[in-house]
Amino acid sequence: MADLTDAERFADLVVEVGANVQEGQEVDILADLGTEEVVRAIAGAAYRRGARFVDVWWWDALLKRERLLHARADTLDYVPPELGARLLRLGEERGCRIWIIGNPQPHALDGVDPERAGRDLLPRLKESSEVVLARTTNWCIASWPTEGWARQVYPSLEPDEALERLRQELAHVSRFDEPDPAEAWRARVAELRSAAGRLTERAFDSLRFRGPGTDLSVGLFRSSGWHAGTLERIDGLESIVNIPTEEVFTTPDPARVEGTVRATKPLELAGSLIDGIAIRFGGGRAVEIDADSNVDVLRAVAAKDEGAARLGEVALVDGSGRIGALETVFWNTLLDENAASHIALGGSYEFVVEDEAERARANQSEIHVDFMIGSPEVDVDGITGDGDIIPVLRGGAWQI
Amino acid sequence: MADLTDAERFADLVVEVGANVQEGQEVDILADLGTEEVVRAIAGAAYRRGARFVDVWWWDALLKRERLLHARADTLDYVPPELGARLLRLGEERGCRIWIIGNPQPHALDGVDPERAGRDLLPRLKESSEVVLARTTNWCIASWPTEGWARQVYPSLEPDEALERLRQELAHVSRFDEPDPAEAWRARVAELRSAAGRLTERAFDSLRFRGPGTDLSVGLFRSSGWHAGTLERIDGLESIVNIPTEEVFTTPDPARVEGTVRATKPLELAGSLIDGIAIRFGGGRAVEIDADSNVDVLRAVAAKDEGAARLGEVALVDGSGRIGALETVFWNTLLDENAASHIALGGSYEFVVEDEAERARANQSEIHVDFMIGSPEVDVDGITGDGDIIPVLRGGAWQI
Repeated sequence: MADLTDAERFADLVVEVGANVQEGQEVDILADLGTEEVVRAIAGAAYRRGARFVDVWWWDALLKRERLLHARADTLDYVPPELGARLLRLGEERGCRIWIIGNPQPHALDGVDPERAGRDLLPRLKESSEVVLARTTNWCIASWPTEGWARQVYPSLEPDEALERLRQELAHVSRFDEPDPAEAWRARVAELRSAAGRLTERAFDSLRFRGPGTDLSVGLFRSSGWHAGTLERIDGLESIVNIPTEEVFTTPDPARVEGTVRATKPLELAGSLIDGIAIRFGGGRAVEIDADSNVDVLRAVAAKDEGAARLGEVALVDGSGRIGALETVFWNTLLDENAASHIALGGSYEFVVEDEAERARANQSEIHVDFMIGSPEVDVDGITGDGDIIPVLRGGAWQI
Repeated sequence: MADLTDAERFADLVVEVGANVQEGQEVDILADLGTEEVVRAIAGAAYRRGARFVDVWWWDALLKRERLLHARADTLDYVPPELGARLLRLGEERGCRIWIIGNPQPHALDGVDPERAGRDLLPRLKESSEVVLARTTNWCIASWPTEGWARQVYPSLEPDEALERLRQELAHVSRFDEPDPAEAWRARVAELRSAAGRLTERAFDSLRFRGPGTDLSVGLFRSSGWHAGTLERIDGLESIVNIPTEEVFTTPDPARVEGTVRATKPLELAGSLIDGIAIRFGGGRAVEIDADSNVDVLRAVAAKDEGAARLGEVALVDGSGRIGALETVFWNTLLDENAASHIALGGSYEFVVEDEAERARANQSEIHVDFMIGSPEVDVDGITGDGDIIPVLRGGAWQI
């Protein structure tokens, strides 16, 4: 048998270990233009596992730009109904979703009126949260290097050097440079789950983040568990939903978030780059939102609905992860959120909250926007129900 | 104002003169990967005309190849229902369809079991004919040069020479090299319509094609008109549905086709290349189908349903067209069918048949496969109801 290409070996990792594609499943792939080689390999791998159909939705941020520049304002909320219908049907049929990041374009919407840019979150659909929360699909988000992305990440390198460096860094953080990447992921997932287990046991009443520009308290539900590595479909099928993943996360109490926080990395949000985010929370709500660039895009998104200005997630990333150590800004949430502890405005993973009354209070929103607030300079403490202060992260290292 | 790029000028031609995009319309584009520049420009032009949404379905024949190589045989007829639903809704809402040919890949399915290759006609949907026949959309098929296509068409040229030659030839046949391409198309459409009018007036009972390997009689309906250049949407909105177009066509009587025919150009059919097609018709049906390559693909398609082995179209192309003169094989029906007179197996344009009883007999099928049977060596005669034989085309020149 011929040697497999890198794309074919990576496809096997995504299909078998990440998404965990099952016999008879429909597999919907969302992929940036430019990732054709790996997407075809993923399709081949999925079909060999018995997939019924692999449907690819190619994403092009520059096409979206044309809409936002030229379409009539009264049409900007319109999305063809079949996109949502397809996603909901996929959930009903216990289908599989794969998202391949290959060409984040943080400048795709430069010059677009931010009010217009914030109205359309495509390729995110309003049905996206619904399907994630219903846990009816097995899924995986992974990344693949392209020239366009490499140019964005390493603007000072020659194109082929940049591509080679991106290829190496993505292989490293995706543990694709290990002799047995599947086994490497099983081991890493076990480590992350162990940290999550220790956090769940502590049952902190809140977390406190302190560092440059940040003094933030995030209330936790009494019955929120910490999760990491894998998610279970409603029928128990496991998938590693992010390759790479380095985070442990839980669902906070959206009513008990107080203080100020400064982002430690820039955020790429639906084609716009938002740098220097600074937010003040009061009574759980983001009451002041500032940023050095494109603040209006973030403000428009945070005004999308009732829950869009409250937290739906808090996640801790320790310094042993592979992404933070690179100090590379990938301009994409999959990678950048796994470089540092983060919080997210918008919808929550309700299912991590055990108690029904608390679960009913978990944040709900059409949006979910992660942004990075951790770094070695940011201390994280856990506050117990009795008011004791327990160090959790110091200089990026677990203290518990 | 900055000068427009070629892509922007071509986009204006497709949107304004070809598809005739209307205020408030949804525009669905089917496009080969590699045509991003012109597709973005088309989206921009459509939005500036007031389009509500431009939805692009990127087509990748190599992804289809993965399915046909690796999927379970019992899944090969499956198509996600939202693809058809989207097309039918577009028709109900009087939407617009644009198809950009940019990378025909006649070898994409090489090595695939022909029986498997013939089962899936994607990107054609079973709803495609229905929407065309209902005349509920305005539409246009056009082409744009890409490196992959150029390599296919001129394999002996260097890549950039090949691309430049394809660019020039496509510009020429699309009349995009004229000072005013819109005006050039209005003039050419008027010429084609004049020929169609003369043919309609003659009201031939049948046509006869005679040339090397060909002696074919194609019966015509008494009430079939000849059409050319534009199609009218059911409410009268006109579009030039092919850029380029050089044909005059009508709907034949599917019961009265007799004799043998040899194709004068190779056919690219859903990713397979079919060379040297030779068909014998008896009682209107293709009773023997031969070819030098991939004959099983054509046979499988012709067995798709009751009407798939009968004719749905006959079209005449005279030698004054720009495509035939180039003697280039473009490996794509849009261009190659306009190089020479052709016939099509499968569904017909029923609406060109005036008489209701005759219209009920027009051929119906899920498929529509054009193949080229004309050349300067093929004489075309019209046979009148009285049995008189009237020369129609000699050496490619109109005789009427």
